[in-house]
Amino acid sequence: MTIQIRKLDSTAADFKTRLSAVLAFEASEDEAIDRAAAQILADVKARGDAAVLEYTNRFDKLDAQTIGSLEIGKEELQAALDGLAPARRAALQTAADRVRAYHERQKQETGGDGFRYTEADGTVLGQKVTPLDRVGIYVPGGKAAYPSSVLMNAIPAKVAGVQEIIMVVPTPNGVKNELVLGAASIAGVDRVFTIGGAQAVGALAYGTASVPQVDKIVGPGNAYVAAAKRRVFGIVGIDMIAGPSEILVLCDGSTDPDWVAMDLFSQAEHDELAQSILVCPDDAYIARVEASINKLLDTMPRKEVIRTSLTNRGALVKVRDMQEACDIANLIAAEHLEISADDPQQWADRIRHAGAMFLGRFSSESLGDYCAGPNHVLPTSRTARFSSPLGVYDFQKRSSIIYVSEAGAQTLGKVAAELAYGEGLQAHAASAELRLK
Amino acid sequence: MTIQIRKLDSTAADFKTRLSAVLAFEASEDEAIDRAAAQILADVKARGDAAVLEYTNRFDKLDAQTIGSLEIGKEELQAALDGLAPARRAALQTAADRVRAYHERQKQETGGDGFRYTEADGTVLGQKVTPLDRVGIYVPGGKAAYPSSVLMNAIPAKVAGVQEIIMVVPTPNGVKNELVLGAASIAGVDRVFTIGGAQAVGALAYGTASVPQVDKIVGPGNAYVAAAKRRVFGIVGIDMIAGPSEILVLCDGSTDPDWVAMDLFSQAEHDELAQSILVCPDDAYIARVEASINKLLDTMPRKEVIRTSLTNRGALVKVRDMQEACDIANLIAAEHLEISADDPQQWADRIRHAGAMFLGRFSSESLGDYCAGPNHVLPTSRTARFSSPLGVYDFQKRSSIIYVSEAGAQTLGKVAAELAYGEGLQAHAASAELRLK
Repeated sequence: MTIQIRKLDSTAADFKTRLSAVLAFEASEDEAIDRAAAQILADVKARGDAAVLEYTNRFDKLDAQTIGSLEIGKEELQAALDGLAPARRAALQTAADRVRAYHERQKQETGGDGFRYTEADGTVLGQKVTPLDRVGIYVPGGKAAYPSSVLMNAIPAKVAGVQEIIMVVPTPNGVKNELVLGAASIAGVDRVFTIGGAQAVGALAYGTASVPQVDKIVGPGNAYVAAAKRRVFGIVGIDMIAGPSEILVLCDGSTDPDWVAMDLFSQAEHDELAQSILVCPDDAYIARVEASINKLLDTMPRKEVIRTSLTNRGALVKVRDMQEACDIANLIAAEHLEISADDPQQWADRIRHAGAMFLGRFSSESLGDYCAGPNHVLPTSRTARFSSPLGVYDFQKRSSIIYVSEAGAQTLGKVAAELAYGEGLQAHAASAELRLK
Repeated sequence: MTIQIRKLDSTAADFKTRLSAVLAFEASEDEAIDRAAAQILADVKARGDAAVLEYTNRFDKLDAQTIGSLEIGKEELQAALDGLAPARRAALQTAADRVRAYHERQKQETGGDGFRYTEADGTVLGQKVTPLDRVGIYVPGGKAAYPSSVLMNAIPAKVAGVQEIIMVVPTPNGVKNELVLGAASIAGVDRVFTIGGAQAVGALAYGTASVPQVDKIVGPGNAYVAAAKRRVFGIVGIDMIAGPSEILVLCDGSTDPDWVAMDLFSQAEHDELAQSILVCPDDAYIARVEASINKLLDTMPRKEVIRTSLTNRGALVKVRDMQEACDIANLIAAEHLEISADDPQQWADRIRHAGAMFLGRFSSESLGDYCAGPNHVLPTSRTARFSSPLGVYDFQKRSSIIYVSEAGAQTLGKVAAELAYGEGLQAHAASAELRLK
């Protein structure tokens, strides 16, 4: 059955409206899920380990007697790694090495050590950069078990200098994912607990007798996990709440259409709500990609997911030229942006908003998902307008340094006092004025 | 009446418990306020300008006919600046210049231009840094009208390269604060609307016919504003939700006790929930500070606020030595940390968690509030464990760059495919494999 993908033309009068309709996605906030998560959090806060144990046994169908028995030791992680097929283990190691190398570069290039400067009167100003002490990484269990996510969340934390990384991963029916445990070993995760859901988020946020309190929780999870993370934000830091995954391909019409079709599939296969969009100035080429889609779809094990995603949320967009394609890319602010074109840099220079840019015909998004080096945790749902890929900077924070000299206190004190009186804060003024000679 | 401030001693058996009790603060989340904010947001989203106008006229007791009539033009901002007393205008200008200089240094030192490197096979990896397009700044009206907040929120955005800054400030009963408007002029704010509350947050987050949609909303507000910001997070970026202000003074016992007492006051005068704590190894010195507090309190116009704050939330903590003082400072992770001691750098080197560090006897916190240069928007309520002062980085975001060469696609493609098969994502694998020769 031929797949029906929405087609848009930028010269149409209603183009903007139609494009908005394609992009429209409202994360449904389920009040029942939110209330359930809140109740579990309150219970974990009040009863600690006992509550975590009860929820874990109930939801994951386990029969554990203590939280301690749910911890996986380093030897077992190492054994999981040793037990992997050699090719898979080697691939995991290569991916980890490349992710580490990129994030070390990121740390070095973006001011990992802060700065400090001295003014003429001896006053020193600056910024100190410090890693977080302890971080929690949530890893989903069951069907969506992604070892690559373990690498992408743990390695930047390690590179930042986080002292201890606590991973939680539910094991429904006691089934462990060896590839996930192997990834934890390679990434240098310090402790692993086989707990999940809102109860795991609560354990990490509040701490229990067995699970240490962390300073930040990162990593994807289901709706209960997302609701729990939102609620503990402020007690601990959290990463972005991820929406459905998206790919936007800008193509000049010269890439093998099978490649582009498969790139659209690679996003669509994630889930029915994923979004794959092609933007191209060449009508004939769009038709060739569509033919490739129909030719290749049946070869895909996840073809039903792909079909639903492309039908409901996909689009093939004809534009006037590549300049206009870039304008639309800035409007969409996609999580993944492929620029499959000759001299892609000229177009990349025009892009202001994207999570990650994949330049040139050989940069398939899947390379970035696994092993190119940059992080695959990226801003979704147009949040690339104001947020960034997960990075070393997410596991560091800054403290301002203000070391005012006696001479500096004389000039700054008068300015501060003047403004403090203007704001009606007399103790502020007096505190500055007491230091005047 | 002598003020009763809690006294703690780190050698007491119950010290940790007592310290935790002093620090405990739970932001009360008022469900009624949250529901009201949600309802206003939904109304603004549905009806735009008309809803914003109705709420503004009702809550601020105005009689405006259009949102356009609530916009303050650049000429009026300039006139407000021109109308200030010369000393006040000069102080505002000095503060703005110093805040700008610090944040320009911050941009330069922390990788404002991103990075890029080429691997042996020609693959290019990197990170592009881009400013946000448009930012909204919320400025409270009425009693807590702080021109310094306008500078601290707007200037980093300007330095980051944000194209347009929209400020909203309610004017209950039509009363405008000339110092706030003057600060907006100096800071380079582009447009100002005299709207506030959840309706202003909604206008900025969704956009209306008159108010442009922004990408991020920063700045403090009341409980309705905070609730509205939480709810629009994800549609736009937001800054941290601020808790009560805090100061922690570590003193070696050689600073004029009047200075330290006044520094504690300068935090306590903000509001009854503000927290001021002194930590010192010298019992006799603590007694001298307490005497100064009682001597100076009556001279303070805001003495009742100070008294309540110090009584309910203040503490004088005796410790064994300055090393222990630093350990406690890391536990508290204070918004403002003064290290009032000889050679303060030796202690600053031990501090991992603080919003801003004020080193030496002359660095009163009030200098940092107004004009030292670093930002006064700082993480409160122990969130300095995982978050940072407001900075240029809050108005920039990164995009990863992945430009894989043909040769790179051969090696990376095999790694990616191996891992994609391991995760059951066959389209990901095929997308990489199609690029293999």
